[in-house]
Amino acid sequence: MSEPCDVLIEARWVVPVEPAGVVLDAHAVAIRGGRIVDILPIAAARAAWAPAERVELPDHALIPGLVNAHTHNPMTLMRGLADDLPLMRWLQEHIWPAEARVIGPEFVRDGVELAIAEMLRGGTTCCNENYFFPDVQAATYARYGFRALVGLPVIEFPSAWARTRDEYFDKALAAHDAIRALPLVGTAFAPHAPYTVSDASFERIRVLSDQLDIPVHLHLHETAQEVADGKREHGVRPFARVKALGLVNERLIAVHMTQLTEQEIADCAAAGVSVVHCAESNLKLASGFSPAEAMRRAGINVVIGTDGCASNNDLDMFGEMRSAALLAKAVADDATAFDAAAALRAATLGGAGALGWAEQIGSIERGKQADLVAVRFDEVEMQPVYNVVSQLVYAAGRHQVSDVWIAGRRKLRRRELVDMDTGEIIAKAQRWRDRIAAV
Amino acid sequence: MSEPCDVLIEARWVVPVEPAGVVLDAHAVAIRGGRIVDILPIAAARAAWAPAERVELPDHALIPGLVNAHTHNPMTLMRGLADDLPLMRWLQEHIWPAEARVIGPEFVRDGVELAIAEMLRGGTTCCNENYFFPDVQAATYARYGFRALVGLPVIEFPSAWARTRDEYFDKALAAHDAIRALPLVGTAFAPHAPYTVSDASFERIRVLSDQLDIPVHLHLHETAQEVADGKREHGVRPFARVKALGLVNERLIAVHMTQLTEQEIADCAAAGVSVVHCAESNLKLASGFSPAEAMRRAGINVVIGTDGCASNNDLDMFGEMRSAALLAKAVADDATAFDAAAALRAATLGGAGALGWAEQIGSIERGKQADLVAVRFDEVEMQPVYNVVSQLVYAAGRHQVSDVWIAGRRKLRRRELVDMDTGEIIAKAQRWRDRIAAV
Repeated sequence: MSEPCDVLIEARWVVPVEPAGVVLDAHAVAIRGGRIVDILPIAAARAAWAPAERVELPDHALIPGLVNAHTHNPMTLMRGLADDLPLMRWLQEHIWPAEARVIGPEFVRDGVELAIAEMLRGGTTCCNENYFFPDVQAATYARYGFRALVGLPVIEFPSAWARTRDEYFDKALAAHDAIRALPLVGTAFAPHAPYTVSDASFERIRVLSDQLDIPVHLHLHETAQEVADGKREHGVRPFARVKALGLVNERLIAVHMTQLTEQEIADCAAAGVSVVHCAESNLKLASGFSPAEAMRRAGINVVIGTDGCASNNDLDMFGEMRSAALLAKAVADDATAFDAAAALRAATLGGAGALGWAEQIGSIERGKQADLVAVRFDEVEMQPVYNVVSQLVYAAGRHQVSDVWIAGRRKLRRRELVDMDTGEIIAKAQRWRDRIAAV
Repeated sequence: MSEPCDVLIEARWVVPVEPAGVVLDAHAVAIRGGRIVDILPIAAARAAWAPAERVELPDHALIPGLVNAHTHNPMTLMRGLADDLPLMRWLQEHIWPAEARVIGPEFVRDGVELAIAEMLRGGTTCCNENYFFPDVQAATYARYGFRALVGLPVIEFPSAWARTRDEYFDKALAAHDAIRALPLVGTAFAPHAPYTVSDASFERIRVLSDQLDIPVHLHLHETAQEVADGKREHGVRPFARVKALGLVNERLIAVHMTQLTEQEIADCAAAGVSVVHCAESNLKLASGFSPAEAMRRAGINVVIGTDGCASNNDLDMFGEMRSAALLAKAVADDATAFDAAAALRAATLGGAGALGWAEQIGSIERGKQADLVAVRFDEVEMQPVYNVVSQLVYAAGRHQVSDVWIAGRRKLRRRELVDMDTGEIIAKAQRWRDRIAAV
């Protein structure tokens, strides 16, 4: 007798990520109540399961949804606004003035919508968000059933979101409480960076992140300049300062980390810190070369993020996986470094772990949430196929993503967004462009 | 009275590349006899020209066809055969044994066919080819109307193509003569590398390349190991040896060049050498970091190549443009380095110049061959649009290429290959895979 389930996905290959290195030939994944309830050969699945919906993917690999571990998604509306500029001119003369004119709940909502559409079409099912108006972000992610950890921003500047330190914390706690009621969405503290956050704020964040048991999402050691300036101002490197303040622990999601001593790498590994490597952003802003492979070999959970569209200029996790794997080899002077399987794992299970969600997502395992992505292998660009995982990392483009599920719900069906109005999203983006470019 | 022409392409934007920095709004390009005969505003074009075919591209940018300045296209059949390995293990344990089993005219023909399909779908209209059986390559490129410079291989090893030094040269000259009769195809000498070619062969190549007035396509200074080994064996760095042999001149297409002194950069600039930067191959094989921006600032014609699919693993010139632009900034420690316009120029007019074809192709100018590519801007991943050239280099994916012309003939029509059988090409690739993977 076969058991009922909601969806049975039959794929040419299933790449579960856990166990590592496995590619399952002609396997099916059964989904019930939003969770994965079985993974087995297609023939056996047809005998065992009576699905409400059967999806055949005869030329596809089914992989876990990709986790983009560092985004500023509202800034998708600023994609390509100002390129080929040094970081501080880019920020001070272009990004901040443009933001000042438009930032607010509507900008955040519309930017997140555009980003969700792009992420879904590129096989990303979860992101680690870092921007103002976390309440609006969370509501938007929840509305479209997209999984996200939203950052509760803390910065020592007045903004459209909050004016004083106390207001940042008051609003953070209120947003945290409100967001707890929403599906698929969680919160982290998001102190901007050591050079924009005071010791006093870091101390409050340490206490509160302990109490609420939520991660701390922090830009750290992005450039050599940041480290030099921090050392001049505080007498120690920013990492040492943050460590002295008690924040170097398993809840820390440290983004960029291009400048690291061996001791700092060892400290991160010992403390269980996760590091988000943003290879393309680091290259484009000439921020430096992150020692991704050295960190990985030391045992650090090195994960992958695109950074915001104003500095990348996309949310393409396939491209970012590939860039991370390629760059790590050259930086390590070792062609065997950061291999394809390591890159795919970093972009899925690794990212899930950084966000504290490794029990829920990041691999195709029984009991986990059904966040799944189908990738077409039937185009000439994917021929011939010797190694499925190599092909996914080194040859596939995000446009080969055909179907996407989050918590068992279909979000992309043969390249079409299921519950989003693409025309309306593009029209809104163009209206924001007109406002931003007008000045 | 309007004049007849073959095709009038009306585009939302035309990016001619020359003059530099120009983006023409709502312009049309008129084609007659395979050449560009006019570039003018759409409204004026409709009055001036009576085309046999009108093509409307209301959401597209029209750019010159991309020139892939370094390929080993038959190796497309080995895409992903052996990844994440050091160069010499990759070559000696995987690539060379696999090649030994299959190399021959059929392998070369079918590999080039697969590559042409991939290149056209990605907006590449010309390549600089480097492999055995140049006669077969040339016939295949000519058959599909694809523009290519094919290398006449010289290497001091017996191969399926030739056994002795004299046979390499005899067959090179015979192939050169035969290929002169073919449309769109030219020849270059392709001595493999300083470590596989003798002084005697280099001297013959210098004399013959002068007489025939054809380029010399050479792997040079790919790794630090190559430079150290060459110095040990010959007493000087490979560049100095090649220079002493008289090959450092405006005909030299030097590929990779990751290891260069300031004097070598100055020598290349003074001599008019073109350098092919293969950013992704250099990263993947951990070959080193090419000083692309330093070369460019010194006045060297730095152009872009993907290298072969066994080491990249694609023929994606959009991806490669982007990787080159991103990597150059980090290597130069300058976010303004190798900007988007420079990257697009390197991938078009620069590449054409390296091949000796800057008078014929590489830009959208009156009198030039109509090698043209249309890129869709109406997908969410391209929204919003602040800067057309930035968007092409930093946000566009090759799947946004909708239409391609070579010498005025349509090769891709709304993503469909016009005169190639995709199903048959994929079936052949899978048969080669079975033979290669069988051992």
